[in-house]
Amino acid sequence: MTTTARTPVTVLGLGAMGHALAAAVTGAAHPTTVWNRTPGRAGALVDAGATEARDVRAAVTAAPLVVACLLDHASVHEVLDPVADALAGRTLVNVTTTTPEQSRELAAWAAGHGVTYLDGGIMATPPMIGQPGSSVLYSGSAEAFEAHRAVLDIWGESTYLGDDAGVAALYDLALLAGMYTVFAGFHHGAAMVATAGISATEFADRAVPFLSAMIGHVRTDAAAIDAGDYGGPEQQSLEFSDLGDMVQASVDAGVATDVVGAVQALIRRQIDAGHGTDGFARIYESVRAGGTR
Amino acid sequence: MTTTARTPVTVLGLGAMGHALAAAVTGAAHPTTVWNRTPGRAGALVDAGATEARDVRAAVTAAPLVVACLLDHASVHEVLDPVADALAGRTLVNVTTTTPEQSRELAAWAAGHGVTYLDGGIMATPPMIGQPGSSVLYSGSAEAFEAHRAVLDIWGESTYLGDDAGVAALYDLALLAGMYTVFAGFHHGAAMVATAGISATEFADRAVPFLSAMIGHVRTDAAAIDAGDYGGPEQQSLEFSDLGDMVQASVDAGVATDVVGAVQALIRRQIDAGHGTDGFARIYESVRAGGTR
Ligand SMILES: NC(=O)c1ccc[n+]([C@@H]2O[C@H](COP(=O)([O-])OP(=O)(O)OC[C@H]3O[C@@H](n4cnc5c(N)ncnc54)[C@H](OP(=O)(O)O)[C@@H]3O)[C@@H](O)[C@H]2O)c1
Ligand SMILES: NC(=O)c1ccc[n+]([C@@H]2O[C@H](COP(=O)([O-])OP(=O)(O)OC[C@H]3O[C@@H](n4cnc5c(N)ncnc54)[C@H](OP(=O)(O)O)[C@@H]3O)[C@@H](O)[C@H]2O)c1
Repeated sequence: MTTTARTPVTVLGLGAMGHALAAAVTGAAHPTTVWNRTPGRAGALVDAGATEARDVRAAVTAAPLVVACLLDHASVHEVLDPVADALAGRTLVNVTTTTPEQSRELAAWAAGHGVTYLDGGIMATPPMIGQPGSSVLYSGSAEAFEAHRAVLDIWGESTYLGDDAGVAALYDLALLAGMYTVFAGFHHGAAMVATAGISATEFADRAVPFLSAMIGHVRTDAAAIDAGDYGGPEQQSLEFSDLGDMVQASVDAGVATDVVGAVQALIRRQIDAGHGTDGFARIYESVRAGGTR
Repeated sequence: MTTTARTPVTVLGLGAMGHALAAAVTGAAHPTTVWNRTPGRAGALVDAGATEARDVRAAVTAAPLVVACLLDHASVHEVLDPVADALAGRTLVNVTTTTPEQSRELAAWAAGHGVTYLDGGIMATPPMIGQPGSSVLYSGSAEAFEAHRAVLDIWGESTYLGDDAGVAALYDLALLAGMYTVFAGFHHGAAMVATAGISATEFADRAVPFLSAMIGHVRTDAAAIDAGDYGGPEQQSLEFSDLGDMVQASVDAGVATDVVGAVQALIRRQIDAGHGTDGFARIYESVRAGGTR
């Protein structure tokens, strides 16, 4: 591909993430136009070859592909509502973090204005953009994903999850739910051992390899969930997993039980419903039932 | 070491775990005596060279090292109280799962009867015993740990955590708290994406590598906790970590919010106390304060 064949790209929002995305496309020699609400954040990008637009309308009309990397759902409307007419016929890739419902609302808004919409969930930090390990989940317009794949792949591994614009955000939040929960579990354990004078670093030295080894076991649970069969012989029973001792030891140690208490609640709801001899994976039924069983 | 130099070992309790422990010491050519409340579980061990004792007293007096692998704290007292006199002068290694307080109670009970006490927390499943990846945490008598190290090392990597008999159980529960929490986080994410027709197995394919990559980041939190400094530049702010979107998306998807709600509660307590610009690691202060801040 020659330089002249590279799609012009506009990036709206030059916070930490928007800056990283713009730097990557500029570095890949795409004609790049940038805009930020507060001026003065485009210097390094302009030095690298990007063009700073004087206003949003100029930015939007500079390229067929417009990337929004703003703060939240409200800021996307605040920036784009006044220039919806200029966006018509172009593709909007919105990588601003939103809820699935907000992504769907933006997709409907875009459709109403003749704008092709692709929603993105970035599974990376700004320094990771364009590096191995960076991954971005997309959903919405399949045509936009295919047409602009060359640009999207600059930022990291690109995965298309289907035409429901909310799925990328849903998947993103689902992975982040796992991540924050892992962190909270570590903090809980660290607070428990701290009461015996063990440092968090010392605990991490043992917890990181242990938890890394254990994470793969979620695949056994996944197979049970997909089969809807929680009685398999490989599965440890829910009764065996009763966290009563753990909750009590936490209370004895003066440690807050928010997180282990929540896990215990998922277990108890299934035991109380008569499923104590089923496998641990049955807690899935507590989770998906929205707290009603 | 010749066979005759090997310490005789008695194992009380031949459930899944006791059986595995006894099989390993029998296989390592230690003179092994076994006992189980319900008869008939020693067959394979006897074939391999172990001796089945006719009662607890005969079992206890057969070896200087007595291993208890029973159901819980109450069952240990039920089995050993009547033979405390016979245990005097011997070493009791108790690997039955108990709370830290229960381990300390057993250590005091043992001391009162002239019994040397070592508490163990097994970080392995029965098939893992004696295999790579099996790890057992010990605390209590340092002399017992040193004197019987050759036996303990048969089962897996042996770690001594100090003379407080409760620490092994505390550490064990702390690691298990992390593990169960990781599983619960996975189930939450799986339930979210299921609402968009994505299978748990498909989610696991993405979540396992993602969470594996993220786990190492707890070391950054550990360093912040140990330094008591939550303001470091490497740390993502608590305000940025607000899980409001995640909780809302879970509610929208009809998924129970027990676990993510609990993590959010830890975050909110610190934001509400005015620490929103501090790093995420500050949730540790919510955990260790026993829910009071
Ligand atoms: N950083 C990460 O690790 C990461 C990872 C994945 C996803 N994300 C997502 O990427 C998006 C941007 O994150 P970031 O790290 O770049 O955040 P940031 O550094 O705080 O930047 C926020 C950007 O949004 C702009 N903005 C905020 N409110 C606005 C409004 N009402 N109108 C116009 N512009 C507005 C800001 O402009 P001003 O300069 O004028 O304030 C700035 O350019 C967020 O949705 C975030 O969740 C970030
Ligand atoms: N399995 C694991 O993955 C694992 C991992 C780490 C730690 N552990 C711990 O190891 C211990 C044993 O676990 P396990 O898997 O072997 O359990 P198990 O298969 O259920 O066996 C329980 C054992 O305890 C005995 N027992 C129960 N109540 C008794 C009583 N009142 N008096 C005398 N004996 C009694 C049972 O004897 P009967 O045959 O007469 O019922 C049986 O030998 C537990 O504390 C468990 O938490 C297990």
